[in-house]
Amino acid sequence: MPTSPAPSERTRIRRLPDRGHYDADTLYSIIDAAMVCNVAFQSNGTVHALPTLHWRDGGYLYIHGAKASRMLKALTAGEACVTLSLVDGLVFARSAFHHSMNYRAVVIYGRFEAVDDPGEKTRLFHRLIDKFAADRWDALRPMTEKELNATTLLRIPLTEASAKIRSGGVKDDDEDMQWPVWAGVVPIKSVRGEVQTDPECVVRDAPPGIGSFGTTHG
Amino acid sequence: MPTSPAPSERTRIRRLPDRGHYDADTLYSIIDAAMVCNVAFQSNGTVHALPTLHWRDGGYLYIHGAKASRMLKALTAGEACVTLSLVDGLVFARSAFHHSMNYRAVVIYGRFEAVDDPGEKTRLFHRLIDKFAADRWDALRPMTEKELNATTLLRIPLTEASAKIRSGGVKDDDEDMQWPVWAGVVPIKSVRGEVQTDPECVVRDAPPGIGSFGTTHG
Repeated sequence: MPTSPAPSERTRIRRLPDRGHYDADTLYSIIDAAMVCNVAFQSNGTVHALPTLHWRDGGYLYIHGAKASRMLKALTAGEACVTLSLVDGLVFARSAFHHSMNYRAVVIYGRFEAVDDPGEKTRLFHRLIDKFAADRWDALRPMTEKELNATTLLRIPLTEASAKIRSGGVKDDDEDMQWPVWAGVVPIKSVRGEVQTDPECVVRDAPPGIGSFGTTHG
Repeated sequence: MPTSPAPSERTRIRRLPDRGHYDADTLYSIIDAAMVCNVAFQSNGTVHALPTLHWRDGGYLYIHGAKASRMLKALTAGEACVTLSLVDGLVFARSAFHHSMNYRAVVIYGRFEAVDDPGEKTRLFHRLIDKFAADRWDALRPMTEKELNATTLLRIPLTEASAKIRSGGVKDDDEDMQWPVWAGVVPIKSVRGEVQTDPECVVRDAPPGIGSFGTTHG
């Protein structure tokens, strides 16, 4: 059962409420493990959504993009709903009906706001690089003022959010347990492949563990 | 450059148009390779989104869920926007600004409609099982009328959709090419882990290749 109550009626998990979680630790760990989120918003009476890279700092989820992006401009004009999910396994049951998926998903309601302060923006882009490669930021060619200005940084608070998690094994009906078909779980994980050094790069050896973020091994 | 034109103004890729694709082959291959999509819609003036499993049959994307789901009911009352994405790699550049991600993403606009005919529903749930395990359907305990009635099946046409793809290597500024930091691509792939047979299952050996869907190897 959830250790924290739902922060609002619209975040409360109604279907299979035992899968709902509302505590910051659970929410943050799923958000941090995911690489991309989906941002839904309304503009001119139409619902739009875009998949985009995200990262977290404290109680906010951050996204960024080109300043010229019309989508990002429209996004701050109203409320948004952010979703993200990780697939952990496929659950093969004895009946089609009980087939399922192990997953961790988060839904966030709120309003994005722009972060405009150059110092704060720089700190947060540093955090973004940290998400994928610790200790990399200081080795990079420093960010220019032009690059900073060309990039919009938006954040949404994680105060109205819920997580839904399914884990574990097959749950079949009692009367189906002897049905002669294989049943079980096939775990799914994200792993990194062989690192491909840029052919023109003067540094030929990749730092150990680079890009191992979000992967179970590698 | 895209081989097909954008089907509508709102699906046309404006940022980095070279990454846009609108042909059915490209759209279908990404949709088929993804396991979950995100469905955004408006209800009572609020934007909602939910991550959910999807599959495809012909020119439609299908989702399903419990008939009692209030979200699924609200969904068919207006327009929706469906997004899905696959992360293929992390691109580490010499400057923070040129860091990127290799990905395949799809955005679909349209309206979901319910599929109510029992025969058609059965055929489509068969297709869903096929997506994750070919030749499994006939071995399962057959679906009951009660199960069929308890499950809502919705479809959205793939007529107004766009794909956006980034692939390839690092693209740094000319003047940064000698900067002494490692640059390159770290491929990301989804693989299956070791199959976990249900402890009570009378069939102990998993069929070869089960759950290998969507994974690069395994």
